[in-house]
Amino acid sequence: MQLGMIGLGRMGGNIVRRLLGKGHECVVYDQSMAQVGALAEHGATGASSLEALIGELSTPRAVWVMLPAGAATEETIQQLSALLDPGDILIDGGNSFWKDDVRRARELAEKGIYYIDVGTSGGVWGRERGYCLMIGGDKPAVDHLDPIFAALAPGQGSIARTKRPADADPRPEQGYMHCGPSGSGHFVKMVHNGIEYGLMQAFAEGFDIMRHADSPLLPEEHRFSLNLPDIAEVWRRGSVVSSWLLDLTALALAEDPALDHYQGSVADSGEGRWTINAAIEEAVPADVLSAALYVRFRSRQDHTFAEKLLSAMRHQFGGHVETPKG
Amino acid sequence: MQLGMIGLGRMGGNIVRRLLGKGHECVVYDQSMAQVGALAEHGATGASSLEALIGELSTPRAVWVMLPAGAATEETIQQLSALLDPGDILIDGGNSFWKDDVRRARELAEKGIYYIDVGTSGGVWGRERGYCLMIGGDKPAVDHLDPIFAALAPGQGSIARTKRPADADPRPEQGYMHCGPSGSGHFVKMVHNGIEYGLMQAFAEGFDIMRHADSPLLPEEHRFSLNLPDIAEVWRRGSVVSSWLLDLTALALAEDPALDHYQGSVADSGEGRWTINAAIEEAVPADVLSAALYVRFRSRQDHTFAEKLLSAMRHQFGGHVETPKG
Amino acid sequence: MQLGMIGLGRMGGNIVRRLLGKGHECVVYDQSMAQVGALAEHGATGASSLEALIGELSTPRAVWVMLPAGAATEETIQQLSALLDPGDILIDGGNSFWKDDVRRARELAEKGIYYIDVGTSGGVWGRERGYCLMIGGDKPAVDHLDPIFAALAPGQGSIARTKRPADADPRPEQGYMHCGPSGSGHFVKMVHNGIEYGLMQAFAEGFDIMRHADSPLLPEEHRFSLNLPDIAEVWRRGSVVSSWLLDLTALALAEDPALDHYQGSVADSGEGRWTINAAIEEAVPADVLSAALYVRFRSRQDHTFAEKLLSAMRHQFGGHVETPKG
Amino acid sequence: MQLGMIGLGRMGGNIVRRLLGKGHECVVYDQSMAQVGALAEHGATGASSLEALIGELSTPRAVWVMLPAGAATEETIQQLSALLDPGDILIDGGNSFWKDDVRRARELAEKGIYYIDVGTSGGVWGRERGYCLMIGGDKPAVDHLDPIFAALAPGQGSIARTKRPADADPRPEQGYMHCGPSGSGHFVKMVHNGIEYGLMQAFAEGFDIMRHADSPLLPEEHRFSLNLPDIAEVWRRGSVVSSWLLDLTALALAEDPALDHYQGSVADSGEGRWTINAAIEEAVPADVLSAALYVRFRSRQDHTFAEKLLSAMRHQFGGHVETPKG
Repeated sequence: MQLGMIGLGRMGGNIVRRLLGKGHECVVYDQSMAQVGALAEHGATGASSLEALIGELSTPRAVWVMLPAGAATEETIQQLSALLDPGDILIDGGNSFWKDDVRRARELAEKGIYYIDVGTSGGVWGRERGYCLMIGGDKPAVDHLDPIFAALAPGQGSIARTKRPADADPRPEQGYMHCGPSGSGHFVKMVHNGIEYGLMQAFAEGFDIMRHADSPLLPEEHRFSLNLPDIAEVWRRGSVVSSWLLDLTALALAEDPALDHYQGSVADSGEGRWTINAAIEEAVPADVLSAALYVRFRSRQDHTFAEKLLSAMRHQFGGHVETPKG
Repeated sequence: MQLGMIGLGRMGGNIVRRLLGKGHECVVYDQSMAQVGALAEHGATGASSLEALIGELSTPRAVWVMLPAGAATEETIQQLSALLDPGDILIDGGNSFWKDDVRRARELAEKGIYYIDVGTSGGVWGRERGYCLMIGGDKPAVDHLDPIFAALAPGQGSIARTKRPADADPRPEQGYMHCGPSGSGHFVKMVHNGIEYGLMQAFAEGFDIMRHADSPLLPEEHRFSLNLPDIAEVWRRGSVVSSWLLDLTALALAEDPALDHYQGSVADSGEGRWTINAAIEEAVPADVLSAALYVRFRSRQDHTFAEKLLSAMRHQFGGHVETPKG
Repeated sequence: MQLGMIGLGRMGGNIVRRLLGKGHECVVYDQSMAQVGALAEHGATGASSLEALIGELSTPRAVWVMLPAGAATEETIQQLSALLDPGDILIDGGNSFWKDDVRRARELAEKGIYYIDVGTSGGVWGRERGYCLMIGGDKPAVDHLDPIFAALAPGQGSIARTKRPADADPRPEQGYMHCGPSGSGHFVKMVHNGIEYGLMQAFAEGFDIMRHADSPLLPEEHRFSLNLPDIAEVWRRGSVVSSWLLDLTALALAEDPALDHYQGSVADSGEGRWTINAAIEEAVPADVLSAALYVRFRSRQDHTFAEKLLSAMRHQFGGHVETPKG
Repeated sequence: MQLGMIGLGRMGGNIVRRLLGKGHECVVYDQSMAQVGALAEHGATGASSLEALIGELSTPRAVWVMLPAGAATEETIQQLSALLDPGDILIDGGNSFWKDDVRRARELAEKGIYYIDVGTSGGVWGRERGYCLMIGGDKPAVDHLDPIFAALAPGQGSIARTKRPADADPRPEQGYMHCGPSGSGHFVKMVHNGIEYGLMQAFAEGFDIMRHADSPLLPEEHRFSLNLPDIAEVWRRGSVVSSWLLDLTALALAEDPALDHYQGSVADSGEGRWTINAAIEEAVPADVLSAALYVRFRSRQDHTFAEKLLSAMRHQFGGHVETPKG
């Protein structure tokens, strides 16, 4: 099947490589012609502009946009909306805000263009392992693109099968899913990332507690010096916490047991934030997911103004002088 | 190898079955003679009292206590301490508080008896999958029992190997680990369970947000009716959140998509609580692990006194009348 | 000074009463003519429609809208926007979302109408104690209305004076403040309410811990039966936690020490939610304010779906049967 | 009345000064003879040793220990226990762990010595404002010391009276309270401090959100530059959040609006931690109080190991390079 890909960064480029490897035909464009050239060498058809890319595709066209969420994606979609014809399919595979999908789908529908939002999980591992795809949009367009989605998804693999009802959709077992109307793919991906933050933070706190098991704050008989790489490794087998994030933790700790190569300044993307906004809109308590987000906010500052105010209040009521760090 | 097992509940009984299946010899005791009989049918040697069990074992004896943490375990260990000889090994495989291990090891060492604490993860699945074992205690005793631990552990399995240093301990890759001196096994297991609470709560909040994606609180164009069993299933493949807890979530949702068979009153064991105590002793922030624990406390009450006080304050300052549940 | 008031509920009615008592002239309108009549008896001029109210006011008119935030306020402001003349001042004293203020001010400025947002704290106590006013909007309009704001504010009272710079604005010491451009009044009020949630929750948790100081979960020698009304009372004097919310707590506990008259189902207004949204937009950690909000969400449900999922996972991995509430 | 005071630091010294000012007689001891001399100039009787202090007091003696909680207090109490006679009263006015009080009271009771634990709130302001006292111990001893407690307490002052039952204990309205048996005074003080942390953190987060209301992360039309000293000041009058901690916030911000003189490294005492331990023992959710404690833990570190692990996981799964602080 033929697919146009716009944006050939880490994600877009690997998606194209995977599709080419599975026998699909890709027309590719990126602001960087070097990226275009690199993929042309793998068998993709390079295009030097959006217009050129559109021109290379047979109708109904399928164009996948894989750009940073926000302005870059929005502008490209606006441009494409002027270039595409009724019946064409526009796919946003990035991390867009799901409410933007709802709006775009409505606007594009007026022109007869299908809009598909795809939440894509898998990171740099996806090219080989496959990408878990969460797809939102109209059924005809989603069904039309099935060969693309099936090629990108990891497939059933060796994962133990769940006993599912006879009439259950078979696609989730292959690693891709039609979640519902436009926006629902990115909504599910958003919550996925929100959960990811929570899972990461749970591991992070637990390993921090074990790292400080030899703290001088503890009585000597209660101190342990624990081997964190071994602990991550042993938990990978038979324990309740075994998970891909634990696998990655084991990899990281095997390379660098004290994690000295990391500073601990942790970025967050929009999806963690939007998950909290969604929880609040729905009045659903989200203590863990919020705490995980706030740790990241905090990690990027030397000291918060909040902490200074605590020190100031303590100084006012008790004449307390600040404790030095240490 | 020969092992005495005291306590033949879900965990103790399955451990014996796994050991018997691997060719080990087990002498078993339980308050319930029916349990003893059941295992005798599988090839274990039944004993009708602690004394009888001790009598059946060759020295140096190895006795595994697998009872509920707290009074039951403590009393049994005190009784065994009077029956065992120097050189014997006493194993507590339950969920004891690690500071109790430190004390017991010190007391038993005075009598020349080894004390080994084993944190055992695997639940009802362990008999087949094997148990992830976190072991604390003196090296000679831990090494002596290696055949038992190796038989109980899951082994390397098909899990992708981490690139570990050449001199790394091979046991963690087999699913068991000597964590350090007495208490360290239960300490690591404690943190494991603390993390488990956090992971579970992260999934729980995320699925709750997706469950309410069709909330009437949202504008109609922003509502989705999401298929939660399919989402759990699709995330098992290629996504960042794939994990054993997600596998279990998929199983549960496939059986009962609305979880109508569950009330939502969630128990907690000592280990979640002790993890927070440890964090506080070490001055390590544990926002997510604490929040996960508090959700369980809250889940077992109709309303907290705290909530009543909020209502009372609102009534006092604003004349607010309470919102009915809904 | 002359003021038109639209909305004669608990807040609007008391504001009018306070203004009349201070010698100001009020023209009042409400959907309920009974409310209009009641205030007319106190000396207000009643109006039977928005148009009639506008007709009674001399230019430049000042019209205060005191309606529930959301649709009611928005519609009334749209209607007034068509009735008012350039130079007139429209005041929203309710709990509107501050971004709506920014938009409305921009729209009304195009017609030459001033828009003032006033965050009003004081609840049912405000009529006597005065209202703490946080005001956003253009300086000329805010200055013009100074006699109204001064009359509504509590004044300096007997509160110990802070040593402030010589050039400090004197109005905050009188209990009202011009916070900045349109939206800033409601922004400050929003954060005020966010803080209020946090303060309330801190007291609520502390009293809950004291309420359960005689819990059977504790060893007998560690149980206390504490007199909560006395504790609230004693803390009002000389302690670090003395505050108006503690005063209200003391009132509530004196009337009903076990708070049996309260169910504990706690409403939340938009302002607590918007505070969290603002924190997230600014990347400021807000652990306490978020937790306080989530307690309220949780308090209005019997059980969350999240809790059911926890039970379901526990059932899957350990065969655990749920603990009954108790 | 006569009182012995051991420990003449900020708290002990001011307590003595207040008692002397109210006509009581104080015999004082401190490791620093300079402190003893300073108070002797105010009219106290100086003692050069514990023995000398005991020798100066008439029986039944009353000895108040005002030392840092922990080893210093424990050792002094052990020494005094050997020096005192049956019928004497030993008072611990510091921030001792309440379970230590329970133990000490039991041990001292065997010798016929009364043990009284007094939680003392008021900080450096207490000398003038009076101290809020939370007292635990046997009624005869507490009643005997009533003149001392009444002199230290703030008294009724100008605080609006709560309508209390006719048979209510009058002491709480004077600012002191007999909370119950030994340990209960420090238990109530512990929770008081736990609440204090929560209140402080609620203000801190709110002011942090307002401080960043002009964040470049916000669209320009949504940015405000807010005057924090004025906001603290205006809220002191008529608002729901008015409180002593807000008064202190106003003082601090008036002196230093950007809080540039504070680093934000915030100490915590045992009481915040023990409050969480108590909540966990009682299975009471304490989200806000825990979060407030963790912020302090975090504030004293450059980066947590947890944050480094987050960075490490992100690097592993997405090839993410860390965001620099900013």
